[in-house]
Amino acid sequence: MPVISVTLVPGYAPEAQARLVSHLAAAARAVVPASEAGTTVFINEASTYRRDGRTLTGGDGAPALPDAGQVVREFLEAVGQRDFEAARRWLAPGFEMVFPGGVVMRELAELAAWAQGRYQSIRKHYARLDQAWQGEVTVVYCSGTLEGRWLDGSGFEGIRFVDRFELAGGRIRRQEVWNDLAEAKAPVQRPRS
Amino acid sequence: MPVISVTLVPGYAPEAQARLVSHLAAAARAVVPASEAGTTVFINEASTYRRDGRTLTGGDGAPALPDAGQVVREFLEAVGQRDFEAARRWLAPGFEMVFPGGVVMRELAELAAWAQGRYQSIRKHYARLDQAWQGEVTVVYCSGTLEGRWLDGSGFEGIRFVDRFELAGGRIRRQEVWNDLAEAKAPVQRPRS
Amino acid sequence: MPVISVTLVPGYAPEAQARLVSHLAAAARAVVPASEAGTTVFINEASTYRRDGRTLTGGDGAPALPDAGQVVREFLEAVGQRDFEAARRWLAPGFEMVFPGGVVMRELAELAAWAQGRYQSIRKHYARLDQAWQGEVTVVYCSGTLEGRWLDGSGFEGIRFVDRFELAGGRIRRQEVWNDLAEAKAPVQRPRS
Amino acid sequence: MPVISVTLVPGYAPEAQARLVSHLAAAARAVVPASEAGTTVFINEASTYRRDGRTLTGGDGAPALPDAGQVVREFLEAVGQRDFEAARRWLAPGFEMVFPGGVVMRELAELAAWAQGRYQSIRKHYARLDQAWQGEVTVVYCSGTLEGRWLDGSGFEGIRFVDRFELAGGRIRRQEVWNDLAEAKAPVQRPRS
Amino acid sequence: MPVISVTLVPGYAPEAQARLVSHLAAAARAVVPASEAGTTVFINEASTYRRDGRTLTGGDGAPALPDAGQVVREFLEAVGQRDFEAARRWLAPGFEMVFPGGVVMRELAELAAWAQGRYQSIRKHYARLDQAWQGEVTVVYCSGTLEGRWLDGSGFEGIRFVDRFELAGGRIRRQEVWNDLAEAKAPVQRPRS
Amino acid sequence: MPVISVTLVPGYAPEAQARLVSHLAAAARAVVPASEAGTTVFINEASTYRRDGRTLTGGDGAPALPDAGQVVREFLEAVGQRDFEAARRWLAPGFEMVFPGGVVMRELAELAAWAQGRYQSIRKHYARLDQAWQGEVTVVYCSGTLEGRWLDGSGFEGIRFVDRFELAGGRIRRQEVWNDLAEAKAPVQRPRS
Repeated sequence: MPVISVTLVPGYAPEAQARLVSHLAAAARAVVPASEAGTTVFINEASTYRRDGRTLTGGDGAPALPDAGQVVREFLEAVGQRDFEAARRWLAPGFEMVFPGGVVMRELAELAAWAQGRYQSIRKHYARLDQAWQGEVTVVYCSGTLEGRWLDGSGFEGIRFVDRFELAGGRIRRQEVWNDLAEAKAPVQRPRS
Repeated sequence: MPVISVTLVPGYAPEAQARLVSHLAAAARAVVPASEAGTTVFINEASTYRRDGRTLTGGDGAPALPDAGQVVREFLEAVGQRDFEAARRWLAPGFEMVFPGGVVMRELAELAAWAQGRYQSIRKHYARLDQAWQGEVTVVYCSGTLEGRWLDGSGFEGIRFVDRFELAGGRIRRQEVWNDLAEAKAPVQRPRS
Repeated sequence: MPVISVTLVPGYAPEAQARLVSHLAAAARAVVPASEAGTTVFINEASTYRRDGRTLTGGDGAPALPDAGQVVREFLEAVGQRDFEAARRWLAPGFEMVFPGGVVMRELAELAAWAQGRYQSIRKHYARLDQAWQGEVTVVYCSGTLEGRWLDGSGFEGIRFVDRFELAGGRIRRQEVWNDLAEAKAPVQRPRS
Repeated sequence: MPVISVTLVPGYAPEAQARLVSHLAAAARAVVPASEAGTTVFINEASTYRRDGRTLTGGDGAPALPDAGQVVREFLEAVGQRDFEAARRWLAPGFEMVFPGGVVMRELAELAAWAQGRYQSIRKHYARLDQAWQGEVTVVYCSGTLEGRWLDGSGFEGIRFVDRFELAGGRIRRQEVWNDLAEAKAPVQRPRS
Repeated sequence: MPVISVTLVPGYAPEAQARLVSHLAAAARAVVPASEAGTTVFINEASTYRRDGRTLTGGDGAPALPDAGQVVREFLEAVGQRDFEAARRWLAPGFEMVFPGGVVMRELAELAAWAQGRYQSIRKHYARLDQAWQGEVTVVYCSGTLEGRWLDGSGFEGIRFVDRFELAGGRIRRQEVWNDLAEAKAPVQRPRS
Repeated sequence: MPVISVTLVPGYAPEAQARLVSHLAAAARAVVPASEAGTTVFINEASTYRRDGRTLTGGDGAPALPDAGQVVREFLEAVGQRDFEAARRWLAPGFEMVFPGGVVMRELAELAAWAQGRYQSIRKHYARLDQAWQGEVTVVYCSGTLEGRWLDGSGFEGIRFVDRFELAGGRIRRQEVWNDLAEAKAPVQRPRS
């Protein structure tokens, strides 16, 4: 049922405009119980725009923020290939990682060293990517399963994980990781009788 | 910079309207690098509305969906107090829980039994709640730390957790849980030298 | 695909607003190849409205024009029942009728006299009513079949007719009638061999 | 008084846009008693448009429907010149004609044969063309007078006719014809004393 | 030609809304060469409004500013009647008056004393009132002629004057006065031969 | 708080559009107590526009009116340099000047002659320029101080003046001048004891 009209200064790329209308449709439908068919969003590019005493015309707009999901995917891809230089391009100053057990790290190289004490190799299979849009910050969760090889050479797979990424200004400023690796090695649970 | 205008049939509660404009502002700012001060959203209630050959006037609108974060908070509160009847009111048909180790359950009572094999008591301290609006589905993540008592009576606290809730139509249809309980009991990691 | 927003001064009745959005959807779809599902029309009631140096607020609006189709139906109903007084209420000054053979009349009573020379009785079965909206003027066509009794007492039925009504300001100012009565009596066509 | 704003995807031709605003003005004025001077309609081309989960940008729009009046005029012109091949281009599958006496035909050639039994020649003088916009269907009526020559070589003129055309998707799917030819030959009416 | 749509939170009085649409029509016509008939302005009251992270609903709006022309008229009326207490209610803190010769005063009583050295009595006939809207500040000019009695008892009339008032927040913070009193007493001009 | 949207036919120059949004922001803030940060104005160029039965598309618009302040500045500049030919280009037919003492003139040359009887030379220092937008007419006031030389060769400076200009269609049709020259020569005021 909702009709959402967005007025922007001209110049945002078609990809960004498509992302914007898609975000807004989704955000509205989290409140208003409307079907996709009943949800209309469109963008009008204003030919002149004035706010706060400043007048903008076409092309004066800042570039759109990158797609947070894409940023996370490219970061994870680079980390998976141990291309830390490429990975670092996606990081904000003050970047921080929190790993299972509450281990806090700030350098990707540090992470590599830490991982060497836990498994020989690991690979993530992504099942879901969720984005939480919060204004200044966008939070991206990705979850799925881990596959790899323990330090003793035995293999594992299907172990659940979830990563939380906090992005500001299109850069990742915090990664937090949870997974069932410890559970897989030594379940907390008492065996059912 | 964006000005977002929403046209709705009349009758949505002020709380829902406030939630809607807040969602839309956040969703837009995940694409357009605009400040809060530069982001304007408003709702116009159409006096008559026609789409798909049907004409609506005030009061014909369906009620708004409940706030997904609030649903999750109330569900967790009820579960924490072992008030399963209250908790079940927030569940969709086919509700499913996935717990560490990939344990799948469908009944809250089942969960209580399972938990008895892992710890004497547990309490969640919530630090963050993130909502991902996806149209049909809203995903809510809440994360924080666990405090409780192991089966041997010893205490624990500050153990990280994250829950993922999938809601459709204002009801929870899936909960997935990750935490560091196993890591806390038996870290995967080789002690650093 | 079109989204049509109408701004009106407040005060038009819900029926008139529903008629307006329905008209506009139909009119737009005569140009833009959009489905009903893809056609959205809504009305916003302006709280204050200024044009041509005059400022209107709610309730200052003139009443809506009556539905031209309804006017025609009520006129024909009254004429059918020979209730000329009721029928005359729907007529504009200068009302004129044109009947088969180009016979022009101005009075309903005159029509009754003329008809007496053609048939004993007649009744219209309406199949279709089409409205052409032209701004100052709305033209209504209704067509269907005639049933009745000739002067010689023999019956007829299924004879095609069409009436054209020209309305201005909600009143009928001209009626024009075509039908196959003469054709039924004495076909122009040479019998096919 | 009404201000009507239409949002379209870009790419509709100026002629179609002009036709659209003209239709909408006329359609609105059939409900709201506004003068031409008080009726404003404008089209905004959205730079991005999303409905029903699909996102359109400029140029993705389907072409506008042809002007139904123009289709009818060109069809009648071709038929008048016995250029049936040209005329057929304007016909929808399942095209059907209904002529005085309720004669139903499906082929233009059939019509030519039928006419030969009625008159030597005929020509239409168009006085009025009315369009009824109904969404899927647009109905066009044209009326005026017939001029020609009877089978016996004598001439006729000023004989009233009206044609009803039903168009869908810019093609004619039904033509219905009424006229006073039979009345002219043999009036139903008893001579007035 | 311009259509100007204003979105406000609900609650502004009809008088203020009428003033707003009138101001906007005038302001637009100072740039766009449109007639009154071609200038449309309307106000939509948003049912919910969010900017800068704050959400407003009806009735949260601040009251409108008073009409600057009316403020000036009431101030001048009170001063003319030597009702300084009433006049002071229209003054902003730091109010300042500048009179012919560049005389600066801050108290209305001071003005009265100063005037006693110039004339026995004076009365203003207002011919024109012009408002310059500048955002924070509105400047009002009123001009006309002075009538009164010199200190020697002789009368004067038709002497031109203009007052400039600077208002902020609906209060007068500066008055500046020019007139031809000195010119009337002792023209600068050399008598024409 | 106000969001002001203006729909124009395309083709107004960016300078004119910037002027328009600035005027509208100022005009609105004279009624609604909104900050600059809370005032948003934007222009949408309609791709097709219909009013009063006429349909406009891009480029059909009349050129914008010139900035009244700029017209006055250029006129005063030309007059100051005694370039009466340039100055006259800014004048409307029927132009009239009113000078101190109520002296009315119609020709710039006449003004030059009149001034010769009052001072040897004069120069204006502009401090403020106020524009009052009134629809057909824009009134511009400029005020500041005069500097020059009396007929006896002695100098003066800091003498207050204000000019009122009435513009229609971008041309000056009336100038009215007030200043303290007479006051400076022969104050009305009794010396304070």
